[in-house]
Amino acid sequence: MYKVNIGKKILSANEEYALKNSQFLTEHKKLCLNMISSPGSGKTTILTRTISELKDKIKIGVIEGDIQTDIDAERIRATEAPVVQINTNGACHLLAVQVNGALENLPVGDLDLIFIENVGNLVCPSAFELGETGKIAVLSVTEGDDKPAKYPAIFAKSKALLINKIDLLGAGVQVDFDIERVKADARKLNKGIELFLVSAKTGKGMTSWYEWLVKSVESL
Amino acid sequence: MYKVNIGKKILSANEEYALKNSQFLTEHKKLCLNMISSPGSGKTTILTRTISELKDKIKIGVIEGDIQTDIDAERIRATEAPVVQINTNGACHLLAVQVNGALENLPVGDLDLIFIENVGNLVCPSAFELGETGKIAVLSVTEGDDKPAKYPAIFAKSKALLINKIDLLGAGVQVDFDIERVKADARKLNKGIELFLVSAKTGKGMTSWYEWLVKSVESL
Repeated sequence: MYKVNIGKKILSANEEYALKNSQFLTEHKKLCLNMISSPGSGKTTILTRTISELKDKIKIGVIEGDIQTDIDAERIRATEAPVVQINTNGACHLLAVQVNGALENLPVGDLDLIFIENVGNLVCPSAFELGETGKIAVLSVTEGDDKPAKYPAIFAKSKALLINKIDLLGAGVQVDFDIERVKADARKLNKGIELFLVSAKTGKGMTSWYEWLVKSVESL
Repeated sequence: MYKVNIGKKILSANEEYALKNSQFLTEHKKLCLNMISSPGSGKTTILTRTISELKDKIKIGVIEGDIQTDIDAERIRATEAPVVQINTNGACHLLAVQVNGALENLPVGDLDLIFIENVGNLVCPSAFELGETGKIAVLSVTEGDDKPAKYPAIFAKSKALLINKIDLLGAGVQVDFDIERVKADARKLNKGIELFLVSAKTGKGMTSWYEWLVKSVESL
């Protein structure tokens, strides 16, 4: 029997679109960050504050992924940033083909940075490449400090981890969250992960995150 | 062309095992509740308090679903309740076949109520029947009051919704969470859903939940 080596990795449909997106973003020198967390960790609040406070430095557009509703896109639209809503109609993560369509509907030429806000889910989105430049994990302190140990994939794959809602620590209520444990567990999974302690609500700690974003855009 | 009507619905492998589990539970008159929420909503804390405070009234066993680690099973074991840990090794929900195996390893004859703590994920677990008597949704107030609108499936399918971490409301910190909006949205999806406002940490509001559990066990 002859073996024919076609010398090419056979890609899944999702990987093919992810590759297209990645090539498009590289060609156009755009930073694209895929934000992943549990529902309610504060992704949209992080985005609205980041867009507003960085508006004189970098131009941001957003691809909003949700199972249903355009509640989050409406919140982004209020900042006047361009936004495209994707409804997955029940599916638990975004697909690269959906991001491909969304990129066609954003004014990419005018933007420096495109955020993808994935469906709120700490598990599935980490398994589907979208062609992004990098993933950003968000964990809020009320979710507990055992999450990197229990849900390792997203922490292992992310460029940065934002530990959000730090305004709830030591504020007269008892929130048990050992920041050092989370840092240590995240670094065990991912030595180079950038860590930011923030409150998207109060603005505390956001400056370091902004500096990292601006630096990341400039170094493209 | 002849059409052969075999008069039988063809079940998926998961549905077949779910049916087996359901028949087993009905035959043995056991209540089995499948608890579903985002990561960090407080499922394990609800369970440990419920087990301890109901221990003279009903005997509870637990099937713990996690992607990795047995952190949660260890917390349950500390209450002396029987517990079986299932690690899904990356999968985002439990399957009925896994619950089938776990039921064989629990002392079912000694128990009144079996809780299944599903993988922390507000999306996928709601699509996989395990043969349970009913589903229980948990939403913590820090996750935001838009969750029933944005993730409707689990709220539509659950017998009860526990709104957890109410100790964080009005406690000197600002948590924006409109309980009436959540109640209204949940009831729009599911007219008969039972609603419990609780703090599993402080114990506030847990009595109504316990009464409902005892009544549910007794009415089997």
